[in-house]
Amino acid sequence: MGHIADKYFKLDPWAVIEEGFDPKHGKVAESIFSLGNEYMGVRGHFDEGYSGPKHVGSYFNGFYESLNFKHPVAYNGFVLTGADMTNTVDWLYTRLEIDGEVLDLATSKFSDFRRVLDLKTGVLTRTFVWETKSGKKVKLTFERFSSLVNTHLGGQKITFEPLNFSGDVKVVSGMDFSIHADEKPNNWNAPRKEKVGDVFAILGETKIGKRYLCATFRLEFDGAAPTNLPLIQDELFAGTEFTLSLQQGKATSFRKLSVNYAGKVLGNAPDAWTKTFKVSKAVKIEKTDAPKDINETADVVWNKGIELAGKKTTYDSEIAAHKAFWANVWDKLDIVIEGDDENQQGIRYCIFQLHQTYHGSDPTLNIGAKGLTGDAYGGKAFWDTEAYCLAFYIFNNPEAAKNLLEFRYSTLEQARIRARVLDCAGACYPIATIDGWENCELWQHASLQIHVSGSVAFGIEEYDNLIGDKDFLYGHGAEMLMEIARFYVSRAQQDPHTAEYGFYGVMGVDEFHMMTNNNCFVNYLAKKSIDFALKVADEMKQNAPEKWNALVKKINLQDSELKKFAEVAGHMKMLQREDGVFEQHDGFFNLPHIDLKSIKKSELPLYDFWAYDRIYRTDMVKQPDVLMFLFMYAQDFSREVIKANYEYYEPICMHESSLSPSIHSVIAAEIGKHDEAASFFGFATRLDLDDYNNNTYQGLHTTSISAAWTNIVYGFGGMRTDRKMLAFSPSMPKTWKKLSFKVLYQGAILSVVVDKKTTTFKTDGKSITAKIYGKEYSIDGNGVEIAIPDFYIAK
Amino acid sequence: MGHIADKYFKLDPWAVIEEGFDPKHGKVAESIFSLGNEYMGVRGHFDEGYSGPKHVGSYFNGFYESLNFKHPVAYNGFVLTGADMTNTVDWLYTRLEIDGEVLDLATSKFSDFRRVLDLKTGVLTRTFVWETKSGKKVKLTFERFSSLVNTHLGGQKITFEPLNFSGDVKVVSGMDFSIHADEKPNNWNAPRKEKVGDVFAILGETKIGKRYLCATFRLEFDGAAPTNLPLIQDELFAGTEFTLSLQQGKATSFRKLSVNYAGKVLGNAPDAWTKTFKVSKAVKIEKTDAPKDINETADVVWNKGIELAGKKTTYDSEIAAHKAFWANVWDKLDIVIEGDDENQQGIRYCIFQLHQTYHGSDPTLNIGAKGLTGDAYGGKAFWDTEAYCLAFYIFNNPEAAKNLLEFRYSTLEQARIRARVLDCAGACYPIATIDGWENCELWQHASLQIHVSGSVAFGIEEYDNLIGDKDFLYGHGAEMLMEIARFYVSRAQQDPHTAEYGFYGVMGVDEFHMMTNNNCFVNYLAKKSIDFALKVADEMKQNAPEKWNALVKKINLQDSELKKFAEVAGHMKMLQREDGVFEQHDGFFNLPHIDLKSIKKSELPLYDFWAYDRIYRTDMVKQPDVLMFLFMYAQDFSREVIKANYEYYEPICMHESSLSPSIHSVIAAEIGKHDEAASFFGFATRLDLDDYNNNTYQGLHTTSISAAWTNIVYGFGGMRTDRKMLAFSPSMPKTWKKLSFKVLYQGAILSVVVDKKTTTFKTDGKSITAKIYGKEYSIDGNGVEIAIPDFYIAK
Repeated sequence: MGHIADKYFKLDPWAVIEEGFDPKHGKVAESIFSLGNEYMGVRGHFDEGYSGPKHVGSYFNGFYESLNFKHPVAYNGFVLTGADMTNTVDWLYTRLEIDGEVLDLATSKFSDFRRVLDLKTGVLTRTFVWETKSGKKVKLTFERFSSLVNTHLGGQKITFEPLNFSGDVKVVSGMDFSIHADEKPNNWNAPRKEKVGDVFAILGETKIGKRYLCATFRLEFDGAAPTNLPLIQDELFAGTEFTLSLQQGKATSFRKLSVNYAGKVLGNAPDAWTKTFKVSKAVKIEKTDAPKDINETADVVWNKGIELAGKKTTYDSEIAAHKAFWANVWDKLDIVIEGDDENQQGIRYCIFQLHQTYHGSDPTLNIGAKGLTGDAYGGKAFWDTEAYCLAFYIFNNPEAAKNLLEFRYSTLEQARIRARVLDCAGACYPIATIDGWENCELWQHASLQIHVSGSVAFGIEEYDNLIGDKDFLYGHGAEMLMEIARFYVSRAQQDPHTAEYGFYGVMGVDEFHMMTNNNCFVNYLAKKSIDFALKVADEMKQNAPEKWNALVKKINLQDSELKKFAEVAGHMKMLQREDGVFEQHDGFFNLPHIDLKSIKKSELPLYDFWAYDRIYRTDMVKQPDVLMFLFMYAQDFSREVIKANYEYYEPICMHESSLSPSIHSVIAAEIGKHDEAASFFGFATRLDLDDYNNNTYQGLHTTSISAAWTNIVYGFGGMRTDRKMLAFSPSMPKTWKKLSFKVLYQGAILSVVVDKKTTTFKTDGKSITAKIYGKEYSIDGNGVEIAIPDFYIAK
Repeated sequence: MGHIADKYFKLDPWAVIEEGFDPKHGKVAESIFSLGNEYMGVRGHFDEGYSGPKHVGSYFNGFYESLNFKHPVAYNGFVLTGADMTNTVDWLYTRLEIDGEVLDLATSKFSDFRRVLDLKTGVLTRTFVWETKSGKKVKLTFERFSSLVNTHLGGQKITFEPLNFSGDVKVVSGMDFSIHADEKPNNWNAPRKEKVGDVFAILGETKIGKRYLCATFRLEFDGAAPTNLPLIQDELFAGTEFTLSLQQGKATSFRKLSVNYAGKVLGNAPDAWTKTFKVSKAVKIEKTDAPKDINETADVVWNKGIELAGKKTTYDSEIAAHKAFWANVWDKLDIVIEGDDENQQGIRYCIFQLHQTYHGSDPTLNIGAKGLTGDAYGGKAFWDTEAYCLAFYIFNNPEAAKNLLEFRYSTLEQARIRARVLDCAGACYPIATIDGWENCELWQHASLQIHVSGSVAFGIEEYDNLIGDKDFLYGHGAEMLMEIARFYVSRAQQDPHTAEYGFYGVMGVDEFHMMTNNNCFVNYLAKKSIDFALKVADEMKQNAPEKWNALVKKINLQDSELKKFAEVAGHMKMLQREDGVFEQHDGFFNLPHIDLKSIKKSELPLYDFWAYDRIYRTDMVKQPDVLMFLFMYAQDFSREVIKANYEYYEPICMHESSLSPSIHSVIAAEIGKHDEAASFFGFATRLDLDDYNNNTYQGLHTTSISAAWTNIVYGFGGMRTDRKMLAFSPSMPKTWKKLSFKVLYQGAILSVVVDKKTTTFKTDGKSITAKIYGKEYSIDGNGVEIAIPDFYIAK
C-alpha cells in the first residue's frame, strides 16, 4: 500500500508513551494525545504555551460556525452555506514564569520529557524537568482529563517539584478564545468576562453564526488558597494570576476545574433552505419543519454555564468517577491479542478513542471524520457513521447506536428538502453534515454521492436485526425508510433496452470515478433499502396496523407508491460477469489499466500531485466499492463470488481512504487469505499511532479507527450481522497466540476466544443462539468450544 | 425546438427598423443596434441617457479586466484567475435640457420614434419628436457610426429641428466611465482628465489589472463654434457643456468625433502561470516565453490617445470613408435570397455583424461569443472561432483568417503551459480565452473539453486546403500542429482489451454529458489532427527540409514521437454500429431515454430549472456532437452514414446551443431533407433579430451568426472544404425563388446562383476548379450552368 510506519511512540499494552520530545512530531502527538468525552474534546497541546509548530485545538461536538461557500458559478443543487466545527476555547491555558523566564519548550532548557496516555483510566500525564536560565531545576507534572461522567468538565493538575532551589513561580491560568489553527482565521468575539464568586467565566460568540459558549474555571490549591484572585482579561481572554512559593524537594500543585457550556441550535429560520442551496426556479417549498439558525441566546448560555460551574465538586472526586467509568468500559469490551504487542496497543487505542468521541449521550450529535481531535473536514459526519461506526455501538452501547439513528431522524426534514432541491422525492441524506443540511461544498460529491440514504437504511436494518427495537422501527425508523425508498425510486432511471432500473450520474464509494452509471454498490444498496422498507411495511400492516396507518397518513404514502417500490427494487440492474465478478459501473471493465506499482510514493496523495481530472481516468479505485456491498450484505453472496471479486478489485485499490484496508482485511479473512488479512489489519489499528498516511497531525481518523474494531470482530471474529441470526467464522493471523473479544448481544455479554485450534463462545449467563461456521449453536455461561475448520487456520 | 420568434423589428432587405419604442424591448434593441469595427464596439443605448432598463455598453476588443475566481476547493488544474472583457467608456454620453427639463425617454413625452440601422452603410439613425412639459416640440435626430476605416474613431451627430418654437437647448457632452451593467460593479478609476487644445481627454484605469484606456473627443458645430468650451469633470467623467440657439423650422446639429486608445498587454510576469492555475506540486516550469501582466503604462496610453485625437479630420469625411468601406464589403460578399424577406434581412444582418466584430486587422484579437455587443461570457473566444467562424473569413478576407490563426500562435506558450498543468505534453488550447490563458472558471469544462486544440488543427488544415499559404503552414502552422499532436498523444489512453487509443474523462461538444470515455467527436478530431501533423511533417521533409529541421530542433521533436503519433492516430477507437450510427461515447446507447417533448417550455433553459446533475443523466444532447465531426470532415463519410446518424441524433438534440440548428440544417440539406434544412435555417439567421432564445438582451450570438453564413454556403450551397478541392452540391428551400452568394477562392470571386432547376457558377475572370455534385468543372468568367439533380430539389 505504499505507506510507511513512523514508530515514534513506545509500545505498551495499556498506554501510549512519548519519551523525549521531538518538535517535528509535535502536531502528531497533539492529535494522538487528544482527550474527549463526546461533549467536548481537546488536543494534546502543551498547557503552558509553546512557540513552536502547534495546533491548539478545543472542540465541542456539534458546535459549529456557519460558512458561506464561493462558487465561480452556482448551479441548482449547489451548497451555498456550510457549517464547520469551530475551534473554541483553550481551557488549559497556563503560563509559568520563574525569575522572569516564561516556560516554553521551544526555547527553554528541559530534560526527562515523558508523556503517557493511560488508556485504562483516560488520564494524560506529562513530566519533565525545566532548567531555567538562572540555573533552577524544577520537575513539572501536568495531568489532565475530560470527564466521561460529568461531560461539561475538564480537569487539569499541575505539580511543581523544585530539585535544587526554593522560590516562587508566577502562574497565569485562564480561558483563551484566541487560539486557532495556523491556517484559519479566529471566529470569536468575547463580549462578557466576569468573576462570579470563585468562578472565572468568559462568554464567546462566533462571528458569523452568533453562537455562544460559556467557559468557566475554578482553582484548587494545596493548603491555603491565594485569596482574592484577580480577574485579568484581554480581548478574547479571561483568567487570573498568582504566585506559588515552592520548597526544594516538596511537590506543590494546583488544580483547575473547567466547566463549559456550548449553546445549542434550537431551530432554523423557515427559509433556511433557500440560503443553504442554490435552488432551481422550479422548486417551491412552502415551509420547513426543521428550521435552524435560532440559537440559544447569550444570556441563556451564560446562565447555564455559571449554574453548571457552581456545582461544588473536587478534582479528586471527579477524576475518581472518570476512572471508574473507564474501568467499566474495559470490563465490557476489551479486546485481547496475545502475541502481537503492536496490534494489542493499537486496538485498545482505537476503542479508547471511539469512546471518547461518542458514547451516545445526545441524539443530536454524530461522529465527525476526525472526532473531536482536529478541525480538518470541519467536524462533519459522513456515511461512515452507519457503515463503519454503528455496529461498534450496537454491540457495546445500544442506546448510543439508537441515538446515532435518532440523529438522522432529527434531520429528516433537511434530507427531505435536499431531495426536493435535487428534483427528487423522499429524503436524501447529506454526504457530509454537522447540522443535518448538506454541508459538502463540492457538487460532484454532494449531488452525486447518493449512497448516504441507503447507508442510513442499512443502519436501521442492522439495528433491527440485532436489537429488535420495534418501537423505534415502527416509528422513526419506518418514516425514514419510506422516505429513503421514495428518494431512490424517484432518482432511478431505466435502461432503454432492458427496462431495468439503476442510477445514472453517480459517484459511488470509490471517489476516483465520477458521473458513473449503474454503480453496483449504489444500485444494490438502493435495492436493499427499498426491499427493507417494503418488508417493514408488511410487518407493520401485520403487527402494528395503527402505527402503519398513522404513518401512511402523516407522509401521504400511496398504495401506488409501494407498488412502484416493488417494481424498482425487483428490477434493479446489477452488472455481473459469468465468473461472478461485478462490474463496478457501466464500462468499468473497459477503462484503461494502470499498474499501481507505477505510481511513485512521491505522487501521493494523488490530489496533491496529479491534475484533478487525471485521477478519474483509469481502473484504479480509491477504496472498496464492489467489495463494500459484498461486506455489508455478505450473506447474500457465496464465498466464491466474494473471492472472485476480491481477487479482481484488491490489486487495483489505492487505499487512499483510511477506511479501505479494514474492509479488505475482513474479506481476506472470510476467503481464507489469512496473510493478507493480517497485513491489512496492522494498518487499521495503527493508522494514527504510526502516522501511516502522514496526516495524523490534522487529527485522528476517527471513523477508520472504528473500522479497526470492525476488522477484529467482523474480520477475525468472522461475525456477520446482515441476517436475523448472528454468525461467526473465527480465524486469526498465524503470528497471534490468542484473540479474545466481547460483544453485547440480546442483553448478554458474549465472549469469544480464538486459540490456535479452537474457538470458545461463552456468555455471562444468558443463553443466546448464533451460527458458528455455518452451524447453529445455543451459547450460555457454560460456553461452547469448537474446533476451527482447517480453512480458517492460517498456515 | 420550442423557441418562439419575437417579431419586434420591421422587415427590410437592407435595414433593421424599430418603429415606436417599447421599453420591454429596450435591452434587446440595444444589442441589435450595436455598432463595432473589430477594435471597439458600442451597444445601441440612448445617447442622451435613459432611466429605464438598459445595459449601456462600450467595449474594446481584447481589453479586459483581471478576475480572481473563488473555488470552495481548488484542485490541480483549476483556473484561479480569469480575464473578462470589461465595459469601458460611454463616448456617446450626452444630456439635453430645455426649459429645465432633461430629456429622458423613460419619463419625457415623445412621438414618432423610429430607429434605423442601415446595413448598407453601417450608420445608425434615431429620430423622434420631444414635447417638453413647457409644450415645446423638437424633432431630434441621432446619427452614429463606428468607423471601419479609422477604427479608433466613433462619430455622433445630433440634429435639432424645433417644430413650434425658437429657443435654447443646453447640452452636456462627454466621456463617462461610470457606466456598467446592472449586475456588475464598476471596474474603473479615472486618474487624469484634461483639455488639450480642442480635445477633451480622460484616462481610465482598471482597478485590478491596472490597464489604461484614453478616451477623447472633439466637437464640430454648424457655423461658429461656441468658444472656450469648459472642461467639466466628475470622478469618472470628463466633458463639456454648451448652449445651442435653435430656430423654428431650421435644423441645427453638432457632431462629436471620439477617438480612443486602449492600452495593450505587452507581456507577462514570468511566473504568471502559477497565479493562473492551481498547479500540482509535481509540475515545474522554469520560465515562460509568453509572459503577461505587463501593461502599457498610463503615460504611454495617454500620449497615444492624445496623438490619435490630434489628427485633423471631419465628421463628414470620416463617415464617407466608412460608407465606402461597407459598399466594398457588400460588393464582394452579399448574399441574395429571393422569395424570403425574413431570411434575406437575417443573413445580411449576420454578415454585417460579423464584419463589425472582426475583419482581421489585428492578430492579437479574436472573436468573443458575444462579439463586442455585450459582456456576457466575458468577451471570451471559444473553439467556435475555428469551427464556425474561420471559414467565413477564409472565403471573404484571407488575411483575417490568417490573423485568427496567428492569435493561436501568439498564445502557443500559454497552451503549452496549460498542457503541462494538466499533466500532458504539447499544447492544450483553452476552451475560453481572451488573453491566451484558460479563462474558464469551471473545471468540468476547462479540464475536460479538450477539443479546442483539435479545432485549431482543423482550422490550420482548412486554411491550407483553401489558401495554401505554405509560409504559414511550414512556420507557425507546423509548430502548432506538432504541439497539438503531442498533446493528444500524451492525453490518450488505451482500451485494456483492444489496445486501441481513445480519450477518457472528457466532455465533448455536447455539454450535457460529462466525464465520458471515447467520445467519437474528440477521438476523431484528435486522430485527424495527428494525421494532419504527420502529413505536414512529410510534406516539409520533402519540400522544406531546412524549415523542418529548424522546427525539430526548436521543439526538440524526436523521431520516436512521430512514430508514436502514427501509432495513436492509426489505432484510434471509434464506436460505430453496424448500421453506421456512431455511439457518441462509451455507453451512450444505454443511457435512459427522455422524450424531448416531455420537457416543458417553462423548464428552459435547463440550467435554470433543473438540478445540475439531472441534466447529465439521459440520452438528450445539447448540440451536435457526432453530427459535428460528420460536418467538419464530411467527405470522409458516405451520405448513408451521415443520414443514419442525423436520423438518430436529430430527435434527441435540445439545441440549447445557438450554434446547433445551422449544423442540422447543413446536414439536412446534404441528405435531401430539404424541409428540415429550411426550418433549421430560419432560426439561424434570425436568432437575435427575433430573440429566439430570449437572451438577446445580453448581446448578440456572434459566433452563431457566423453559423448562419455557414448554413447558406455549406448548407444550401453544399460547399465542402475538407479536401484539397472545393466541392458544391447546391439546393434551396422550396419557398425560395433564387439564392446567390459569392466566395473568394484562389484570388477569384466565385458567384454561385441557385435557381429552381439550375445552378450557375461563375468567377470574375480567373479560372478555378471545383467539384459540383461530385463532378469536376473548370469555372471562369463565362460561367457554368448545371441542372440540379432531382435529389437536391425540394418538393
